[in-house]
Amino acid sequence: MTITSLVPLSVDWKDTYITILDQTKLPLEIDFIDLVTIQDVWNSITSLKVRGSAAIGITAAFGLALSASNYELETITEFRSLLEQDRNFLDSTRPTDTNLAWILNRLVDSIKDARTINEAKTNLIHEAIQIQVEDEAICRQIGEHALSLFKSGNKVLTISNDGSIATARYGTALAPFHLAKEKNIELKVYVSETRPLLQGARLTAWELMQSGVDVTLITDNMAAHTIMAKRIDAVIVGADRIAANGDTVNKIGTYNLAILAKAFGIPFYVAAPISTFDISLETCAEIPIEERSPDEITHINGALVAPESIQVYNPAFDVTPNELITAIITENGILQGNFSKEIAKQFEI
Amino acid sequence: MTITSLVPLSVDWKDTYITILDQTKLPLEIDFIDLVTIQDVWNSITSLKVRGSAAIGITAAFGLALSASNYELETITEFRSLLEQDRNFLDSTRPTDTNLAWILNRLVDSIKDARTINEAKTNLIHEAIQIQVEDEAICRQIGEHALSLFKSGNKVLTISNDGSIATARYGTALAPFHLAKEKNIELKVYVSETRPLLQGARLTAWELMQSGVDVTLITDNMAAHTIMAKRIDAVIVGADRIAANGDTVNKIGTYNLAILAKAFGIPFYVAAPISTFDISLETCAEIPIEERSPDEITHINGALVAPESIQVYNPAFDVTPNELITAIITENGILQGNFSKEIAKQFEI
Repeated sequence: MTITSLVPLSVDWKDTYITILDQTKLPLEIDFIDLVTIQDVWNSITSLKVRGSAAIGITAAFGLALSASNYELETITEFRSLLEQDRNFLDSTRPTDTNLAWILNRLVDSIKDARTINEAKTNLIHEAIQIQVEDEAICRQIGEHALSLFKSGNKVLTISNDGSIATARYGTALAPFHLAKEKNIELKVYVSETRPLLQGARLTAWELMQSGVDVTLITDNMAAHTIMAKRIDAVIVGADRIAANGDTVNKIGTYNLAILAKAFGIPFYVAAPISTFDISLETCAEIPIEERSPDEITHINGALVAPESIQVYNPAFDVTPNELITAIITENGILQGNFSKEIAKQFEI
Repeated sequence: MTITSLVPLSVDWKDTYITILDQTKLPLEIDFIDLVTIQDVWNSITSLKVRGSAAIGITAAFGLALSASNYELETITEFRSLLEQDRNFLDSTRPTDTNLAWILNRLVDSIKDARTINEAKTNLIHEAIQIQVEDEAICRQIGEHALSLFKSGNKVLTISNDGSIATARYGTALAPFHLAKEKNIELKVYVSETRPLLQGARLTAWELMQSGVDVTLITDNMAAHTIMAKRIDAVIVGADRIAANGDTVNKIGTYNLAILAKAFGIPFYVAAPISTFDISLETCAEIPIEERSPDEITHINGALVAPESIQVYNPAFDVTPNELITAIITENGILQGNFSKEIAKQFEI
């Protein structure tokens, strides 16, 4: 038995429906929702009940397979046409999510040689489950590589939630902590609460507690003092997008921690699957940063915590320049040194 | 007319009572409370309705003068004895606050030559008002010196509330912004919300809006990205205590900003009155940092925002080492270079 199994799966296939963990209710309630129709799946993604690029991709894959399994059609041509419609419908949940588009296309491609509707239905379910299985394997490999960088007794700081519940299982930045627990390696994790939406406090703190990991919550402005006072050994974060030179886009606050890590002379690790790299981007210097609603900052749980009509700046992400990153940990191993060269190698044919 | 007068006074003397601005209700309500008895004054300090070392000192001074003005006694000896009791009572609101003790002693000392009860009552009121007047003058001088470091168009980042409402008027770190507005110098202020208690969001954002200052709120983890994206020119903060070598104790999160300022090559200023220096402390390296209740982090406005029973680290302050400080701005001028030498000069007799 692995202790990690104590973290509920973010999404799971149940043959005639899909279950998801409702992440909007965490950590106050651990609530699972059954998704039966493709509209249920669409809603679960747009309402943020499921979150994390990998978990969303798996949910959408299951959703497309589930919807197709209920088609009552005469010809494979009609089947392909309706599948195409459903693919587009699910893709519309997050039109700029390249991972989602890639996964949905992969499902559609899985039936290109199917001759019967039954064969097509079976292929789609197999492919969707395969995507879940692969993601778990990738996360586990990231975790194994990341864990090789830590020693028992180490104290590690993280931010946001790049965890099990954002993926099939294990997560990326949090994978080494779940694996350490399985292997009885003692790591002590500090998590930055991650304002404005508190993913660190609400999700990472909760998820690591499920695995029995020794986790302590701080506010984001306590990072410098905590690194010094608690003798933090390393910082590890996830990534939303990594450019060809290693520049990393991630949740707002990541850049702060990278600068602090450098100032204190401790390593700063980025953990992410190869699919996170966008090598069409030379750097992230010019990337547009999404600005979100001022309400996220001025209101907490619906209550106003700032003056009405105050000006707000609410960038959702920031860019950590490659020179602040000690290593990028992928399922293929640990990239360090000349990132441009090491990343290019991953994409050589 | 100065625009600064639009910021309500944190505390004011009304002959037969004291008014204070209830800072626990800001920014949602602008509510003034009349303090009539010494017990009212005691309650206003312990319930944090009045906050900031200077504002608390002034409130206590007014409180002692007010209480004494109502004594109905026969002899100056009885008067001195009751005053001593009241002094101790007010000192018990914050037993480790050296500024409070110093102010209360200053009031007691003001009647040492008084021969009649009436003379004593008058001396106490004069001395208390004098303390308020002096604090305003000190803050204004700090503001003038600080403002000399900025140019019109500058963008400046601050944290917490070292403002008008924490002092007699103007504040310390916020004084240059109020003065700039009086002088039509355009400064753009960014304020870090300052978790866990959100003094930046609740108080500084509100206070600067009262003066018409151009102020924008960010969360604490947005500081690095904001400094880069908005081209912040400088960081300015207050201080709770400054050691003989310039090491500065201030609200948690200050140290983060000092490291970021250095990384971005922008100046980091500390603004504080000479009374903040504790030259009996060689450095702040060994200073004990108060840890406050986990609830401040796990709950916001009474609502739980983290897993129940999560471990929390909640240091109230941090220490910014002198080498990260560009200059310390006092009422006497701007200290820079060799802080140990410059600070020692301030205390030469």
